[in-house]
Amino acid sequence: MGSLNFDHPQENNSAHMSGPLDLVELRRQGHMIIDFITDYYQNIEKHPVLSQVQPGYLKQRLPESAPYNPEPIETILRDVQDHIVPGLTHWQSPNHFAYFPATISTAGFLGEMLTTCFNVVGFNWMASPAATELETIVMDWLGDMLKLPNSFLFSGTGGGVLHGSTHESVVCTMAAARDQILSRIGEENIGKLVVYGSDQTHSVIQKVSQIVGIPSKNFRAIETTISSSFTLSPETLRLTVCSDMEAGLVPFYLCATVGTTATTAVDPLGPLCDVAKDYGMWVHVDAAYAGSACICPEFRQYIDGIEGANSFSFNAQKWFFTALDCCCLWVKNPSALTKSMSTDLEVLRNKASESKRVVDFKDWQIALTRRFRAIKLWLVLRSYGVANLRNFLRSHVKMAKRFEGLVRTDERFEVVVPRIFALVCFRISPSAISKANPTPSDEKCVNEVNCKLLEAINGSGWVYMTHAVVGGMYVLRCAIGASLTKEKHVAMAWKVVQEHVDAILPLTMY
Amino acid sequence: MGSLNFDHPQENNSAHMSGPLDLVELRRQGHMIIDFITDYYQNIEKHPVLSQVQPGYLKQRLPESAPYNPEPIETILRDVQDHIVPGLTHWQSPNHFAYFPATISTAGFLGEMLTTCFNVVGFNWMASPAATELETIVMDWLGDMLKLPNSFLFSGTGGGVLHGSTHESVVCTMAAARDQILSRIGEENIGKLVVYGSDQTHSVIQKVSQIVGIPSKNFRAIETTISSSFTLSPETLRLTVCSDMEAGLVPFYLCATVGTTATTAVDPLGPLCDVAKDYGMWVHVDAAYAGSACICPEFRQYIDGIEGANSFSFNAQKWFFTALDCCCLWVKNPSALTKSMSTDLEVLRNKASESKRVVDFKDWQIALTRRFRAIKLWLVLRSYGVANLRNFLRSHVKMAKRFEGLVRTDERFEVVVPRIFALVCFRISPSAISKANPTPSDEKCVNEVNCKLLEAINGSGWVYMTHAVVGGMYVLRCAIGASLTKEKHVAMAWKVVQEHVDAILPLTMY
Repeated sequence: MGSLNFDHPQENNSAHMSGPLDLVELRRQGHMIIDFITDYYQNIEKHPVLSQVQPGYLKQRLPESAPYNPEPIETILRDVQDHIVPGLTHWQSPNHFAYFPATISTAGFLGEMLTTCFNVVGFNWMASPAATELETIVMDWLGDMLKLPNSFLFSGTGGGVLHGSTHESVVCTMAAARDQILSRIGEENIGKLVVYGSDQTHSVIQKVSQIVGIPSKNFRAIETTISSSFTLSPETLRLTVCSDMEAGLVPFYLCATVGTTATTAVDPLGPLCDVAKDYGMWVHVDAAYAGSACICPEFRQYIDGIEGANSFSFNAQKWFFTALDCCCLWVKNPSALTKSMSTDLEVLRNKASESKRVVDFKDWQIALTRRFRAIKLWLVLRSYGVANLRNFLRSHVKMAKRFEGLVRTDERFEVVVPRIFALVCFRISPSAISKANPTPSDEKCVNEVNCKLLEAINGSGWVYMTHAVVGGMYVLRCAIGASLTKEKHVAMAWKVVQEHVDAILPLTMY
Repeated sequence: MGSLNFDHPQENNSAHMSGPLDLVELRRQGHMIIDFITDYYQNIEKHPVLSQVQPGYLKQRLPESAPYNPEPIETILRDVQDHIVPGLTHWQSPNHFAYFPATISTAGFLGEMLTTCFNVVGFNWMASPAATELETIVMDWLGDMLKLPNSFLFSGTGGGVLHGSTHESVVCTMAAARDQILSRIGEENIGKLVVYGSDQTHSVIQKVSQIVGIPSKNFRAIETTISSSFTLSPETLRLTVCSDMEAGLVPFYLCATVGTTATTAVDPLGPLCDVAKDYGMWVHVDAAYAGSACICPEFRQYIDGIEGANSFSFNAQKWFFTALDCCCLWVKNPSALTKSMSTDLEVLRNKASESKRVVDFKDWQIALTRRFRAIKLWLVLRSYGVANLRNFLRSHVKMAKRFEGLVRTDERFEVVVPRIFALVCFRISPSAISKANPTPSDEKCVNEVNCKLLEAINGSGWVYMTHAVVGGMYVLRCAIGASLTKEKHVAMAWKVVQEHVDAILPLTMY
């Protein structure tokens, strides 16, 4: 690393700028970057989706220390093009089928720009009333679109808040649930608390359990099986809870998932909430990916039973066109949340808060600082309307159906679990591998062949998919939903899969 | 609340959009909003700084539910102008002197646009190598500008990461410190752990202690006094720690502050770290506001002793022109952090991570999701260069000096603590109040007069300042540093203060 010389001789000669926010420059550079960004999207398919750089590539291309003197935006943007873009994995590429989509939209983009423009720190109502009030309004609008019960809405007895991530939502709800139970049984019993999920529950639950001080041995990842499509069984949950209680432990938090990360499995909310109710547990519903689909009547059934839960979150940043970051959390009992997350800071004391007529969102989240995220969600809802938002989601589901259909037409493949939303989980089937290879092929061998296939597909640079391991099976995941993806990209993705499987298991062998 | 009709008759007739990211529309609307935003800044002084709306104002102006059909951007922007702007507290106004500044800049603005444009989810290296590598590079650049010891840099034995807030940085470091000590004394002893700060330490420490499972009675807010400028006394710390140890408790985490929220007091890092070392405590240095100033040689002294700490954070979103959110955290021992924050998620498994040749920032933070914040910090460093960044900060300090000078020229006022950075803490002095009011005036009365003055100033709409209470004194805080603030605004702010004090304590009485 180079080191700055604090007595740099040019210091006094350096060009004095008018300030960090020169409006002539903001307008000029702002227009320039709009064109830069639109051009990036226009040319996005020219780049390999998955970056092909090697670890450490960037250090070799950039100086060892920050420049002493200012550099023109033109130079910086050229460097973005030459040095940053090659190191990006292009999440906005129409050929990005990995993980889950991180969707953007024109409205989400403009909304983010307004968030930055106003750059208000809306920790409490008074620090920017519009930021707080718009958030309560859009959370009710969206809750209404999802047909959430009134008990989750401000217009009822609950309320919603925008967090930065599911992790933050789980920290807040789990801390609230923990403090509720500890206030009854005593702080010293924190070591007895137990958290429940399935082996398909996102790692967020285990990580957050540890963050909030639950002993690592007190997290239960209840096993799921393919026979029940990797969903959490209410019966097994009850048995596990009973066994923990017999051992003197205290069950207190259950995470049910609507759309698991691996395969978009949907846990049965109603029966799970019934079990939780019997033992006084807090139920959080994590619908990070699939929640948005529930604005369509045909998908609303997947959150049936939500009325029995205590909190519900989904990520608008995933499949709802708002750009990072925007996690929507609704809670039934806001006072449980604020009891655990409130701070009383003299410098923020004000009459509006004391009047109790306003919401102070600092008491609904981890941090004090908060971005004005509500405005981008508002722009998305208004720019597209409910009708087009449904159309966008349905078009992705339709493309996923098409891809699923293509997989089913090729006898070398199998669809591992039935597709529900816009994710297709598939693999080369064990029987196809056995046919091609006369020596007996065990599961390990089947997994290796599928892993090899995925590596070949991603190495091509044409598309990017990822994998999961469920029930011991290595499966390929094709997640459709990037904002620029059209039917032709899905057709091309399938062509890439076929080309690479041909090299492994030629169709001619059949 | 209105309720959506899922069988809306117009559904099938609604205009089908080409998709959420139509590039012709993105370019058109993008240029439009650049002008909207620049115009907002140009006219920002026409609005009262502190919003004058009443609780519930917005609900009366917006529809009860989300629109079914799309609305044009022109309509939405008109509503932003008519309904959102009046409810904003204008943090970017040159007349905003409240809290601490939340600065933006042209470069920060453009950087945020690139963050949104690429919208990569850089949880691990592979998910976007450029995002991870640029972050390691800018954190070393910035660490170098601050003359942090090599033990905090990637080029040495440490490293830095961008978080969303100080709260997140404290959650991660406190969980790491907690797990380190509990691995030695056993998880069941979590109830014995004690956290230390002063009565001036930000509420973040107490809130996070509770989040990570430390009993609320185990947080020590050590009293400070005006005689030591509200700094934490190493001697008192040692006595408190010893007394806790005698009671069988286990001290494990100390937060020292460089630039406290109330008065920008600077705790003596060296001596505090010495005490902490004797008892094996983790020291976190919170320089949320004042850290940025330490890139200037004349302010670097305030973090002397940092080599004895374990972690250091400052908010580039405060006084470093990056816009929300951007908290910079450096740690000496990244493995302590990653040990507590790591997750092993099958869907993210990849060869680069397994090679151990890359950094996976998901293991340095709470969430999995992370925005590409490094690019905006990179744009800020390059667009202005070290020289101009220092110039910007110095110009704010100079203006604060000027304001402090003006306060001192008026015998009705006193500067409560010596100004160090760009915050001036002042009040109408008790003697001035006694002189004006022949009945004896106690501290309560002095505080009430000052509170009344602040309310009058803020009610004017011309400027916005906030208050603090230190050592029982209610003080007014004038925090200079908004990106558009010039000398004339500071002069005007003082004029507003004088006009309002004239109504309370006319100079003619002297």
